[in-house]
Amino acid sequence: MASGSVNQERLWSRLMRLAEIGRQASGGVTRMSFTREERMAKDLVAGWMQGTGLSVREDAVGNLIGRLDGTDAHAPVVLVGSHLDSVPNGGKFDGPLGVLGALEAVQTLRAQGISHIHPIEVIAFTDEEGARFRFGMIGSRALAGTLTAEHLQAQDADGVTVAEAMRSAGLSPETVHKAARAAGSVKAYVELHIEQGRVLEAANLPVGIVTGIAGPLWLRFRILGEAGHAGTTPMRMRKDALAAAAQVLTAAETAAAGQKRTVATVGQLTVSPGGVNIIPGCAEFTLDLRDTDESVRDEVERQIRHQAEAICARRGVRLEIQELQRVPPVSCSAWLQEEMAGCAQEMGIQTLSLPSGAGHDGMQLAGLCPVGMLFVRSKDGISHQPEEWSSPEDCAIGVELLYRTLVRVAN
Amino acid sequence: MASGSVNQERLWSRLMRLAEIGRQASGGVTRMSFTREERMAKDLVAGWMQGTGLSVREDAVGNLIGRLDGTDAHAPVVLVGSHLDSVPNGGKFDGPLGVLGALEAVQTLRAQGISHIHPIEVIAFTDEEGARFRFGMIGSRALAGTLTAEHLQAQDADGVTVAEAMRSAGLSPETVHKAARAAGSVKAYVELHIEQGRVLEAANLPVGIVTGIAGPLWLRFRILGEAGHAGTTPMRMRKDALAAAAQVLTAAETAAAGQKRTVATVGQLTVSPGGVNIIPGCAEFTLDLRDTDESVRDEVERQIRHQAEAICARRGVRLEIQELQRVPPVSCSAWLQEEMAGCAQEMGIQTLSLPSGAGHDGMQLAGLCPVGMLFVRSKDGISHQPEEWSSPEDCAIGVELLYRTLVRVAN
Repeated sequence: MASGSVNQERLWSRLMRLAEIGRQASGGVTRMSFTREERMAKDLVAGWMQGTGLSVREDAVGNLIGRLDGTDAHAPVVLVGSHLDSVPNGGKFDGPLGVLGALEAVQTLRAQGISHIHPIEVIAFTDEEGARFRFGMIGSRALAGTLTAEHLQAQDADGVTVAEAMRSAGLSPETVHKAARAAGSVKAYVELHIEQGRVLEAANLPVGIVTGIAGPLWLRFRILGEAGHAGTTPMRMRKDALAAAAQVLTAAETAAAGQKRTVATVGQLTVSPGGVNIIPGCAEFTLDLRDTDESVRDEVERQIRHQAEAICARRGVRLEIQELQRVPPVSCSAWLQEEMAGCAQEMGIQTLSLPSGAGHDGMQLAGLCPVGMLFVRSKDGISHQPEEWSSPEDCAIGVELLYRTLVRVAN
Repeated sequence: MASGSVNQERLWSRLMRLAEIGRQASGGVTRMSFTREERMAKDLVAGWMQGTGLSVREDAVGNLIGRLDGTDAHAPVVLVGSHLDSVPNGGKFDGPLGVLGALEAVQTLRAQGISHIHPIEVIAFTDEEGARFRFGMIGSRALAGTLTAEHLQAQDADGVTVAEAMRSAGLSPETVHKAARAAGSVKAYVELHIEQGRVLEAANLPVGIVTGIAGPLWLRFRILGEAGHAGTTPMRMRKDALAAAAQVLTAAETAAAGQKRTVATVGQLTVSPGGVNIIPGCAEFTLDLRDTDESVRDEVERQIRHQAEAICARRGVRLEIQELQRVPPVSCSAWLQEEMAGCAQEMGIQTLSLPSGAGHDGMQLAGLCPVGMLFVRSKDGISHQPEEWSSPEDCAIGVELLYRTLVRVAN
């Protein structure tokens, strides 16, 4: 490949420095939205943005933005970035690579003295992961103008709402609509991210071009049975909420496994009252359901709901299902995919086109502007864990491709 | 029936007063072992004991004891009592009825001026429920001399060991052996308790005489799979610890339901890492398995272990099973059952003989002395919940029968 223009050492040292904020004993990173750790991360990145000559601001939902004007200050803006929040005990790359990669790309662009017509904004979106409030992409929703009053009332595990969390972070939920961008004001959104899967590793390639993003559907199941003493209630007289939940979990797994690409995950499950010798009166769990084909995903959802109802009816327990989010799958822009492929050819590297099973902020922006994504190879496909890893070389190749794409898209 | 000697109003008002300690917003009671609430409960009862003329002390494990000497200070002691700790958000009767009933019986004995040869000790055992450390009957084990160093190292959900909890309550775990009673020093242990089931209610009888206690076997299962991103790991590449656990739960339920009296309960289950969009890498749950027939219980255990191993092997996840406690079923003393039946006849009330599905401190004492138990009818069989209820009249009838039994047994 052509020798890179980006500074691999600077990129890597910033990644490692950022990973110190929210660092856990396990080596993992915990940076939940609207917390002190997130604030520290934004401040650190804002300082680097300023050092790069960007004009820095935060919008009404807390998205951190570093802007570099082009030759036409009124031309639609090119957005490039990712997020700084993490899942609990997550990795160093999911999110930060896209933000620091965008910053490195812009810094390279300035260092090379390359002119561009369109303004470029490096952006770190607020709460992409959804780890705190069980639905994600809060910042990109606000930017797309689709964050609702209902979203703002969603609660975290301690009963704190998004609105309350925003206030405690110095933001005003009442003015969150000011974060929305006008139609036609954004030329493109481009994001660099780790793959979080094994496709690139299996193909022995450092980067890939994303064709589309599978839409996550998040449901919360609540099963209400009857608590009781474990020793004195015969099996046939029980209304055990957890026993019912166990059957629903197996049904969900089986329904997803019956399709080619559908994935179904129960990642959270709580039982109450929670005594060793108490029959569970209540079991709650989440279901994350994804497919790049919306009709297949919806059919699997229908099967799971149908079976859950049958299981709970048979056991005489109550079933409540709440929809936390339902995001349609999104296709990446053909134009951006072509520009990316062209840049890769310039660089002399082979790439692969692949879909994203994970959700990303770009999904929320698809109604506002063309969306393009690049993936960097993940070691062992591991993500959302301390062991999440992409090599310094692969990261630099991804940023080089992002930088070259940016030069084309901003002109 | 013969008009009662016990003071129903005094008994009831003490029950209600005690229920204020650890009272929850739900109306339930939470009094975990070695906590401030348990301390307050012991202090309250100790005051009532002193007011009744008992000499009060706490032994090395924190069992609260109120002693009334008989005419022979060296004769083996008659123990009568129960416990003051509760499950989280439990009821007002499970435990307190037996302690306050014993106190009421002794107070009646004194008021009636009835002489007795054997010393009587009213006892409130430390941590019967096991809600904090996942194994119970700590006080009665210590009294029987079977509390081990391993028991003292068991941890609660915050990682605090029994030994540490004892120290923070002013006790010395090093001297816990001093709580053990010498062989031959205890004539009998008699306990009054709520049934926690529906047998007496169905038979329309206020009290029952217990024939034996089903032995609880408590296991902790730990399944170790591989955490991963919910969107990027195809179903066939997963090692989902919770999906494996769900199948084991169903297998356990099915194995128990295949027997007449066996009950299997999974009351606690935790998942980690615990993100909505993270495949669970670890699932832990408890299993409570009971039968009055030990061989049947052990056969069901064998089936569950066998199936759990097969499920986990098939899924490529690791299985660890830890035994938390294994209590053999215990038969109640025929002598004490006969004395109780004789007293019921004196009172002109009909009783019923029934086994106990719930575990009780008496199980730990069966190697030390004859054990007898009386049950009071439970409304709707509900226990370990705020709605746990026995009527003032039924409680008084139970205490009257306990009192009369005590007069016989202590002479």
